Amino acid sequence: MKTAVVGCGAVGSYYGAKLCKTGEEVHFLIRSDWEAVAQNGVRIISDEGNVIAHPNLALSPEEIGPVELVLVALKSTANHRFKELIEPLVGPDTAIVTLQNGLGNEADLAALFGAERVLGGLCFVCLNRIEPGVIHHLAYGKMMLGEFASLPLGRTHEIARLFRNAGLSVQVTDNLERARWEKLVWNIPFNGLGVVAAAGYEAFINGEVPEHFNLWDAFATDQLLADPRWEAVVREVMAEVIAVARDNGLGISSTFADKQITLTQQMGHYRTSTLVDFEAGRPLELDALFLKPLLIAQASGVETPRLASICNFLVQMNSIAHLGGPVA
Amino acid sequence: MKTAVVGCGAVGSYYGAKLCKTGEEVHFLIRSDWEAVAQNGVRIISDEGNVIAHPNLALSPEEIGPVELVLVALKSTANHRFKELIEPLVGPDTAIVTLQNGLGNEADLAALFGAERVLGGLCFVCLNRIEPGVIHHLAYGKMMLGEFASLPLGRTHEIARLFRNAGLSVQVTDNLERARWEKLVWNIPFNGLGVVAAAGYEAFINGEVPEHFNLWDAFATDQLLADPRWEAVVREVMAEVIAVARDNGLGISSTFADKQITLTQQMGHYRTSTLVDFEAGRPLELDALFLKPLLIAQASGVETPRLASICNFLVQMNSIAHLGGPVA
Repeated sequence: MKTAVVGCGAVGSYYGAKLCKTGEEVHFLIRSDWEAVAQNGVRIISDEGNVIAHPNLALSPEEIGPVELVLVALKSTANHRFKELIEPLVGPDTAIVTLQNGLGNEADLAALFGAERVLGGLCFVCLNRIEPGVIHHLAYGKMMLGEFASLPLGRTHEIARLFRNAGLSVQVTDNLERARWEKLVWNIPFNGLGVVAAAGYEAFINGEVPEHFNLWDAFATDQLLADPRWEAVVREVMAEVIAVARDNGLGISSTFADKQITLTQQMGHYRTSTLVDFEAGRPLELDALFLKPLLIAQASGVETPRLASICNFLVQMNSIAHLGGPVA
Repeated sequence: MKTAVVGCGAVGSYYGAKLCKTGEEVHFLIRSDWEAVAQNGVRIISDEGNVIAHPNLALSPEEIGPVELVLVALKSTANHRFKELIEPLVGPDTAIVTLQNGLGNEADLAALFGAERVLGGLCFVCLNRIEPGVIHHLAYGKMMLGEFASLPLGRTHEIARLFRNAGLSVQVTDNLERARWEKLVWNIPFNGLGVVAAAGYEAFINGEVPEHFNLWDAFATDQLLADPRWEAVVREVMAEVIAVARDNGLGISSTFADKQITLTQQMGHYRTSTLVDFEAGRPLELDALFLKPLLIAQASGVETPRLASICNFLVQMNSIAHLGGPVA
């Protein structure tokens, strides 16, 4: 299946390289890592076996032309570039799978290209890009795949098969929205509190964003769970997110949170994408991961004081981090 | 009418102070400028006559309690605080008027408080906050007021009358969406290109965001119009925005752009809010003013290459400005 990967950070590179190794025709739309990948291929470092893949490389989508499958792995802060980057890839039967985190990405794609083209692929995987073209795979890899605008179709299962051929575990869901919220149950506390931790526990509990803090004091997943005070907050946030999902008719079992904590303990030292963005001084994916969920939480009338506080801290810390001083 | 003003920057302070001088019970929810306003009142410096008003001041919405009218004048980058800041102000018959710029603010309020409470008030006014509690009124002041979810109601005209009593020109619209787009016809080119100008005309035309630029090279309105090359771009952007509005069934006449240019020439040296935010290192109102309109433009299929380019420049310049270096 002719496939284009748009956004070749850790996630796009990992799934794209895996597909490429099965012999599929895979094109990477790539800019910043072009030189490294042209020279050395995409390299996946993993306990499950290292991989070197040599996808076709393109600097513009026009070079690639229409494909059967687009994998979107841009940061959601770059969604305004969807049209420019994806439109030249779209032919009559193109399916577009967003591998992005958070809420709203499918809707943005649907507005541009039609809801019937769009799928969501949730990536339950621990990856870090350690240098240009080199991805460290730490754990997991499961993808949850669902249609945006319908129950699973023939093509849904076909795309799932494609990734299974690459040795990946793929589950087809008939409820993408529930899957998104299940993933948020993990992402909101671990991605959010990991960054908030740089402000200090006391500051968070008192609701006072400090004017100065050190970017490097942010916490990886194991650091959050090593402190019983933070672990308690992680559990409170999970309970809030589950309550919102349930209020929206999305059944998530009450044992789900415990299971996530156990899985995360097994995961070891993982630096979430939001932590990596924060330390690198990049804009955080605030809207998709935190602010849109908060709006839905608040509209549903479920009390989510921890989530609201995380949003306040992240918005302000994002500005302070960039400014090196308090928000004017 | 018991009124609360949420967000006491230039816009909130100006309209709130005007109402206050008519004898209405006006409460400012205020934090950063509290000391200055408590001591000296809100001061409006204007050729139309200076004003000093002494509204009630509150540090929390709970101190104010339910009101009949909420005026929302926060930056749209703070919309995630709507619930916390506004909910305690809402009683059974509270109307909420957002004076914010751009698209999506009414919808965010409606999701939280019900669409039937929400109105939009578009402020065609040139204001700059020159020091804490001191607003320089440079020109205009007209407000276009409309219901979010219905044709004008009795209360719409009542609120309009309130502002008219304060000496302001208020027009009630039966099509808030059209009014929003008419305002965007001005805001997108002048707010957007004013900041983009710091990257230089050549860079913009070539579509190459420079890695370094000076925040202080951004352009006020008169500087854009003084350069025929930038004026031509302003007109192109206006034509794009009008085309999108028309494609969405919102009739904006073709002479509208010319009229806006003429009005802006008469306005003199005006530093837009986006320019002020940019120079102060604050996050830009990208979503409401630029990215949401772009998504609608692209979804409608109208070609808007200038608008897309403005968005690319602003997103990247926003990051570069904060980082002092290129986006990683």
